[in-house]
Amino acid sequence: MRILITGAAGFLGSHLSDRLIKDGHDVVGMDNFITGSQDNIVHLMGNEHFSFYKHDISNYIFVPSKLDAVMHFASPASPNPASPLAYFNLPIQTMKAGALGTHNTLGVAKANHARFLLASTSEIYGDPTEHPQKETYAGNVDITGPRAVYDEAKRFAESLTLAYHRQHGVDTRIVRIFNTYGPRMDLDDGRALPNLLRLALLNQPLTVYGDGGQTRSFCFVDDLIDGIVKLLYSDEHMPVNIGNPVEMTILEFAHTINKITGNKAGVVFVDARSARDPQRRRPDITRAKDLLGWEPKVNLEEGLMKTIDYFKMKLGIA
Amino acid sequence: MRILITGAAGFLGSHLSDRLIKDGHDVVGMDNFITGSQDNIVHLMGNEHFSFYKHDISNYIFVPSKLDAVMHFASPASPNPASPLAYFNLPIQTMKAGALGTHNTLGVAKANHARFLLASTSEIYGDPTEHPQKETYAGNVDITGPRAVYDEAKRFAESLTLAYHRQHGVDTRIVRIFNTYGPRMDLDDGRALPNLLRLALLNQPLTVYGDGGQTRSFCFVDDLIDGIVKLLYSDEHMPVNIGNPVEMTILEFAHTINKITGNKAGVVFVDARSARDPQRRRPDITRAKDLLGWEPKVNLEEGLMKTIDYFKMKLGIA
Repeated sequence: MRILITGAAGFLGSHLSDRLIKDGHDVVGMDNFITGSQDNIVHLMGNEHFSFYKHDISNYIFVPSKLDAVMHFASPASPNPASPLAYFNLPIQTMKAGALGTHNTLGVAKANHARFLLASTSEIYGDPTEHPQKETYAGNVDITGPRAVYDEAKRFAESLTLAYHRQHGVDTRIVRIFNTYGPRMDLDDGRALPNLLRLALLNQPLTVYGDGGQTRSFCFVDDLIDGIVKLLYSDEHMPVNIGNPVEMTILEFAHTINKITGNKAGVVFVDARSARDPQRRRPDITRAKDLLGWEPKVNLEEGLMKTIDYFKMKLGIA
Repeated sequence: MRILITGAAGFLGSHLSDRLIKDGHDVVGMDNFITGSQDNIVHLMGNEHFSFYKHDISNYIFVPSKLDAVMHFASPASPNPASPLAYFNLPIQTMKAGALGTHNTLGVAKANHARFLLASTSEIYGDPTEHPQKETYAGNVDITGPRAVYDEAKRFAESLTLAYHRQHGVDTRIVRIFNTYGPRMDLDDGRALPNLLRLALLNQPLTVYGDGGQTRSFCFVDDLIDGIVKLLYSDEHMPVNIGNPVEMTILEFAHTINKITGNKAGVVFVDARSARDPQRRRPDITRAKDLLGWEPKVNLEEGLMKTIDYFKMKLGIA
């Protein structure tokens, strides 16, 4: 297949490009580099199965050659308020990527009679009152809050995708992506795992908020990409959660990270910050198992081992 | 003020135009007539305080003269699956009106340093689990359901409006409109009140689903418009519910309508249809009372008396 991937220079978009080229496809990458990085795709430049357009997908998209699939992964996605690249700090670009970007990429899929896959997110569940989250859960998103620029844009994008499927017969898919980690992730992403891993590699004590009893589920990127590709190859139109359902406390994460990295600086407990983050989010992956035969295979220790070299390189540690 | 009203040929947009002209303002109306009707504004044609552009606001908007306010009321809004004008049946137009239309009208407000008012809806609460609904309620919307094309478009529009307020300093307002009735409403709107009133005026028995114990709250249009205008004149940026909190059962509505119209055909009970409609929705109007000094004044009997002549005209009854 010839596959357009928007956000190809992002963490997930670049891994997806690698995997699809490995599977024998041709990838047309697109990114405006607001949050994506050339570093993530430099190894693909010159590859005869990869071409690239620098373009903002909230504007009209023109691709001269026939496409068989369109995968819309472009969006700011970092929830770190301290990062200038967080969706909090790019609110209008984030909403445009979700609305205009989805509208434009659906248009490309329609014109090419191509299949379409939307990268949605567990953020559409907001601060969930149901746990773990099934795809049928309506979510608990504060429309007026600062996170809404991302959450509501993705909710809108899902509804628009289903509208194109029902109204125009576009062959669509929707993946709801949960927390993911691995090489090429943004070290300043603001999520717990990269924060802790970074501190550990700098031999600093790991900062744990409150008693560290909050839980997280993190999926290694190779597992996630495998689930997304299986969904692309499937005929499932309704949303599918892809993520790792193994839930761990932040304190368990911290201890594992210190063990793997050999960090002797231990853990420090600090006051819970004015918690903007949801306290718990964990995918129910029954649909992914049943429909796609998918479940994650890489455990946390393995995944961390595969991630450490990248973090060391970014931190300038030999 | 010089005020742009999108959806000016709609039920609410046309009443809003009348009221603002009466208040001494100049109104620039805009409508693409997908669901609006020329009949609603024909009386304004030739009025020196009213000008009109036929335009689809999901495309770029150009208004040559300086604007002081922009009020975005354009959208399909009928929930009647049997109507070709229902948002179910115009899914992509509905999502474009909510996303591209809001984006374009916010752009006009920003360029003109004009205040902006978004017509949002109680539909953002979905099928509510909290009753009555306060503005802080996150709602219960099924992203993947057929109503989502309207609900999620309006949720997105609210978040985008707040993003323009926070990021670009646009002087925005958001009204969440609950069920409204009155002259110029669509008789095929699909909601309980017009359905029942229509049957009564045709001297037919009023069809009541189930035991008629489902409740509804209906606001007379003059009350609603008064609340919206008060919000426009205020400095409140967070969403405000405007609607009538007087909750009545469908059976009470039916009896009142039969009484007012002198319909002797009574009521027939039929099996509850596969209920897509929310069973209950009622505004908490504490914020409107406190911030705007607004509450509805027209009771159901008065409101119905003012609506009957319009329905008779539309039904061709002398």
